[in-house]
Amino acid sequence: MPNQDKQRGVQQVDVHRIPCSGPGDLSGVQALLDQGVLRATDIVAVMGKTEGNGCVNDFTRDFAATAWCHFLAPHLDCTPAEVAQQVALVMSGGTEGVLSPHFTVFARRWVPAPAAPPGKRLVVGIAHTRDFLPEEIGGAAQIDCTAAAVQEAMQDAGIADAADVHFVQIKCPLLTAAKVSAALGRGATPITHDSYESMGYSRGASALGVAAALGEVARDAITHASVLADWSLYSACASASAGIELEGNVVIVLGEAEGAASPYRIAHTVMQDAIDGDSVRQMLQGALDSNEAVTQRLVNLLAKAEASPNGAVRGARHTMLNDSDINATRHARAVVGGVLASVVGHTALYVSGGAEHQGPAGGGPVAAILRVLP
Amino acid sequence: MPNQDKQRGVQQVDVHRIPCSGPGDLSGVQALLDQGVLRATDIVAVMGKTEGNGCVNDFTRDFAATAWCHFLAPHLDCTPAEVAQQVALVMSGGTEGVLSPHFTVFARRWVPAPAAPPGKRLVVGIAHTRDFLPEEIGGAAQIDCTAAAVQEAMQDAGIADAADVHFVQIKCPLLTAAKVSAALGRGATPITHDSYESMGYSRGASALGVAAALGEVARDAITHASVLADWSLYSACASASAGIELEGNVVIVLGEAEGAASPYRIAHTVMQDAIDGDSVRQMLQGALDSNEAVTQRLVNLLAKAEASPNGAVRGARHTMLNDSDINATRHARAVVGGVLASVVGHTALYVSGGAEHQGPAGGGPVAAILRVLP
Amino acid sequence: MPNQDKQRGVQQVDVHRIPCSGPGDLSGVQALLDQGVLRATDIVAVMGKTEGNGCVNDFTRDFAATAWCHFLAPHLDCTPAEVAQQVALVMSGGTEGVLSPHFTVFARRWVPAPAAPPGKRLVVGIAHTRDFLPEEIGGAAQIDCTAAAVQEAMQDAGIADAADVHFVQIKCPLLTAAKVSAALGRGATPITHDSYESMGYSRGASALGVAAALGEVARDAITHASVLADWSLYSACASASAGIELEGNVVIVLGEAEGAASPYRIAHTVMQDAIDGDSVRQMLQGALDSNEAVTQRLVNLLAKAEASPNGAVRGARHTMLNDSDINATRHARAVVGGVLASVVGHTALYVSGGAEHQGPAGGGPVAAILRVLP
Amino acid sequence: MPNQDKQRGVQQVDVHRIPCSGPGDLSGVQALLDQGVLRATDIVAVMGKTEGNGCVNDFTRDFAATAWCHFLAPHLDCTPAEVAQQVALVMSGGTEGVLSPHFTVFARRWVPAPAAPPGKRLVVGIAHTRDFLPEEIGGAAQIDCTAAAVQEAMQDAGIADAADVHFVQIKCPLLTAAKVSAALGRGATPITHDSYESMGYSRGASALGVAAALGEVARDAITHASVLADWSLYSACASASAGIELEGNVVIVLGEAEGAASPYRIAHTVMQDAIDGDSVRQMLQGALDSNEAVTQRLVNLLAKAEASPNGAVRGARHTMLNDSDINATRHARAVVGGVLASVVGHTALYVSGGAEHQGPAGGGPVAAILRVLP
Repeated sequence: MPNQDKQRGVQQVDVHRIPCSGPGDLSGVQALLDQGVLRATDIVAVMGKTEGNGCVNDFTRDFAATAWCHFLAPHLDCTPAEVAQQVALVMSGGTEGVLSPHFTVFARRWVPAPAAPPGKRLVVGIAHTRDFLPEEIGGAAQIDCTAAAVQEAMQDAGIADAADVHFVQIKCPLLTAAKVSAALGRGATPITHDSYESMGYSRGASALGVAAALGEVARDAITHASVLADWSLYSACASASAGIELEGNVVIVLGEAEGAASPYRIAHTVMQDAIDGDSVRQMLQGALDSNEAVTQRLVNLLAKAEASPNGAVRGARHTMLNDSDINATRHARAVVGGVLASVVGHTALYVSGGAEHQGPAGGGPVAAILRVLP
Repeated sequence: MPNQDKQRGVQQVDVHRIPCSGPGDLSGVQALLDQGVLRATDIVAVMGKTEGNGCVNDFTRDFAATAWCHFLAPHLDCTPAEVAQQVALVMSGGTEGVLSPHFTVFARRWVPAPAAPPGKRLVVGIAHTRDFLPEEIGGAAQIDCTAAAVQEAMQDAGIADAADVHFVQIKCPLLTAAKVSAALGRGATPITHDSYESMGYSRGASALGVAAALGEVARDAITHASVLADWSLYSACASASAGIELEGNVVIVLGEAEGAASPYRIAHTVMQDAIDGDSVRQMLQGALDSNEAVTQRLVNLLAKAEASPNGAVRGARHTMLNDSDINATRHARAVVGGVLASVVGHTALYVSGGAEHQGPAGGGPVAAILRVLP
Repeated sequence: MPNQDKQRGVQQVDVHRIPCSGPGDLSGVQALLDQGVLRATDIVAVMGKTEGNGCVNDFTRDFAATAWCHFLAPHLDCTPAEVAQQVALVMSGGTEGVLSPHFTVFARRWVPAPAAPPGKRLVVGIAHTRDFLPEEIGGAAQIDCTAAAVQEAMQDAGIADAADVHFVQIKCPLLTAAKVSAALGRGATPITHDSYESMGYSRGASALGVAAALGEVARDAITHASVLADWSLYSACASASAGIELEGNVVIVLGEAEGAASPYRIAHTVMQDAIDGDSVRQMLQGALDSNEAVTQRLVNLLAKAEASPNGAVRGARHTMLNDSDINATRHARAVVGGVLASVVGHTALYVSGGAEHQGPAGGGPVAAILRVLP
Repeated sequence: MPNQDKQRGVQQVDVHRIPCSGPGDLSGVQALLDQGVLRATDIVAVMGKTEGNGCVNDFTRDFAATAWCHFLAPHLDCTPAEVAQQVALVMSGGTEGVLSPHFTVFARRWVPAPAAPPGKRLVVGIAHTRDFLPEEIGGAAQIDCTAAAVQEAMQDAGIADAADVHFVQIKCPLLTAAKVSAALGRGATPITHDSYESMGYSRGASALGVAAALGEVARDAITHASVLADWSLYSACASASAGIELEGNVVIVLGEAEGAASPYRIAHTVMQDAIDGDSVRQMLQGALDSNEAVTQRLVNLLAKAEASPNGAVRGARHTMLNDSDINATRHARAVVGGVLASVVGHTALYVSGGAEHQGPAGGGPVAAILRVLP
């Protein structure tokens, strides 16, 4: 029985995929509020795709997060800054190729238990780590704090068994020139001086924290030297996105629990490489009854993308890692966004770049949130 | 009976897809010569994917073309500059995403007619237009000269019926700041002052020339105002690629003819939009016997990609046309390259960006060259 | 006597150049409020340099403007949206090279006339045009509305003689793919389909409006065909910056008037090309007594930059207009920012890109705001 | 007495700055040969500015070097590949901002000693190191081999005293994804996995090799940990440029020697930061008689540029190191190119990006080659 510490009934999660005309456009959200379809106080997490470069100086993430804070503050009766402590706001930059900017909003409420238990249904939980020092990014502190926060978020979601976790979204910090400089001034040694590279370290350590929390990798198998080096260590559920707009990690756990009343389920798989649409097709066929259309049931795909670190896809050289005009994560999002859109027929998908220790090298986790038809 | 003006027998075309480690790397070609698999004097056309930005200042196209000229000159007993008059060298820049740089080499020779006529088989023909003045680019002169060159190349290929043409590759010039300045100095009016935009006009006019030559669009239905405006006018076979390295159009016609002895066939279709992998799957299923693997038979896909000019894919907004960091053609190649690679399982595909009047708005032609198993 | 319609005394303008750590960082502004140095209700105009690409999809401008709206709303007792109607918020994207992001804040109040009239001093006025239809951008409507708004802003500033105007800052809209599409759908014809190019048309028409208002160019000498074509028509005071975040023009007039009590003066010149530091040195030497240091007196330089449209600087070819990886305005800001910083010794300068009809072709206006030492 | 091992007379160096219309355009060089002004067999070194991105995938460097090899091969009676062993071909990518693509050609011959010894005059010498393994780049092997090659090149130039060396140009290799992968496969550990970052390590180690050779820094003061960390260690003469097109370092030493017959002198200084035009002005005033114009005498400036690693210029934040759309070296070249062009009045300057251990942090060496008027 999930959510035993909450006496208000059983958990019911609603998921809304809402398009936007720019990072600060929440008119679609307002419309749902106006229609009574969504209640602002129920919003527990937002996963946004914003149209920046998804790299160091992508301010569309901060812009969108700030817009959400200003938007929700009067509803939550707190300051804009306090909103980010109550709601997990994860903005992932980069809508390269066909990807369409949008927000996926998770709303959670507690309802009376339904007459007939519906089987496993979607649940969601969130948690925050403490802020990290610049020199902690990419290292043990970030791994361990993330692992603890994942377990906290599982508890918040009412998930007891790691096998019921299907996707763990992390938002994690990066190193800027200013932060590196400050750390060096204190005699501390950041893991890299390069901002763009720090994003990879932060994502990689966060993903290993997820893997440890879910038992996918034994914690003591992860050493300082593993991060961004031993690609055999990975989580099949982790999705980490680095951003300039925060100093600690935010964690969203998506999974299933018996007894929840949500009209959604969630499934996941792993793309073996950036063009592995077949794994996604199989996951969808497994999760759906054969005669139901994907278009009717799919709310969103949540996926990670990366340029394979060995410089090749199925044996043929790619040029993403040597491209000094377009960062590799941008290429990777464009590819995986296109592949997934060709499978499911729409383009407002959550595809996030940089899949270090998130799925196998060159591949990445993909989760599907599916509507349960009445 | 094709090639009636050539008394040496029937046409036999061989196609080689050859990877390279950089724009100037022809070691793979040399290896084929050394193995006796390819004869330099048979080479009639080369379609390269090079790893530049595919836009105005992409010198990888010129670098590769120059390398080919230096490579072939001793074999053809001419100067490097003269090679480009004998062989159609079409270098298309841009290997965004998973696309892998490579050359597709078409070799043609005349062999004794086989005992049993094999049915329709691959043939190839080439032609060149005259050089264009800057102010002619994007206008009637380019349309008409291209149409004439397509018919010349059909004749060279031995194709009498436009229905047997499956792909027409054009390499066409663009406007640089210097050329615009020179034209204005003469009192002439180029169609645009913007170099990147001129690439679209040059591709669009060239494609309309193909459409006119093949009877897909009536010549008198095309006016000055149609170019880059009336997207209902298009060729389902045209593929045009603009480059800084030439002043006239180069034309390669790929099609089929009865009696040719080539161990290849060619088929084509049109992607309706950038994520329309299904049309390509259907074309391959139609062209292949059901129990044959694509991987065994496919030599290469030749495709065009573009950001849909109405700013949306299947109704959802895309951001490609508003992106001032990455040009839209680069996004489009990354997407279509990923989608096609997910269909056929390899990434050394010829995907060229900017599909103005080449397929429907937002989509583009795709041809498949398939090996005929003995 | 300026400002005769305001009975509260004489105009006193204060100017603050305030660094920021990102587009949404107004902590430096808050500090000035806390110190009592600046009063929020006095703020009449803000000219920001934000760290985006300065082109179409630069959301740092919108982010900063939105932050200002949220920041000022409680002080002005209005909604955030209404702030933009009361205060001229001009955010110019792009801090390429050494340029340092910052805000220049103009505060205006009315004080008792000083005992001794100080001679000409800095005054400021603002105005807004109506919103433009997509097809009006770059054409006569934008020119004429801008000219009228400049005269309105001169009146607001208390300037009667155009010779006392030293800098006219315009923020103007651009065309997005969506706006172009909408216009075409209505049967209207936007001046260009290309978003980036539309920025140039919008800036150019706005600058010609300034030139007409100030009598630098006769209105009837400006035709539809002049815009972005006849570079002999220009304003020596206009600075126009295009952005995605508005639909009409915002106008800030900076000049001098007898009797104002501001402890600042303003001077201007024209750079003849992007490396013409000498003109700026001469202007500063003319405006300053010889023994005063620039560093003591200079508040800020306000300048326009562009890649010379003929493709050359002092006879040598430049590559800015053919660069498909970095837009020409970005190159130009980096150059002019460096040149100006080498003259004045600091880098938080207002350098805006795209100087169509703003100064001579390849050059641009530069104004210096100078503190008057007591 | 310089060049004592060469019995043909005294050294006479000629320097030609030759514009080009693209990386492969040597028509300007051919014109000088045709005019008898330059003899192909005298060419000892070429320093080119080519119009690529100057980063990892800048093939304009390789294109230009290859063009030179094909151009000189018949003159030197060797294969194109052998040309690079006889002539030091250093192509530096990146002509951001106003910089104009060009080649600076150094021709050396031996002439009878002039009647009156002219004082110190320009001399040039070259050398090559062996090829480096991927894991040697950025480390002791590269430092030591470079130091040895500098001394070899000094000897070739006829310079005995390090004080007579004014500029040492290095072309050095970088790590590609393929090289990193190969090294890791052998169990070796490259200094970084990131291609762009490897360029900095390669330049930094090369510059420290120059500093050691010239006695600017004691060799035993340089440890593995110094590279890209201890910015107090630097050469005031080194200029290193990394490229994908070679595996070892090429060294060009430019300096002066008594008795040489060259009609040129050379001077150098150090810019303290990217906007330090004053140091260059002072150097030129010191080297020139007061009444001579720079424009008459200056052949070229040779300079290094970088984004200051502490993230600020004269105390104000810059955004170059956090920019994921444009690499910092590109910003830096645009700035320094503009500053230097504003000092000397022309834009075909050799400004190379990435000044690690080349001048102080954020600054860089600048040398001026000056014509001696008869």
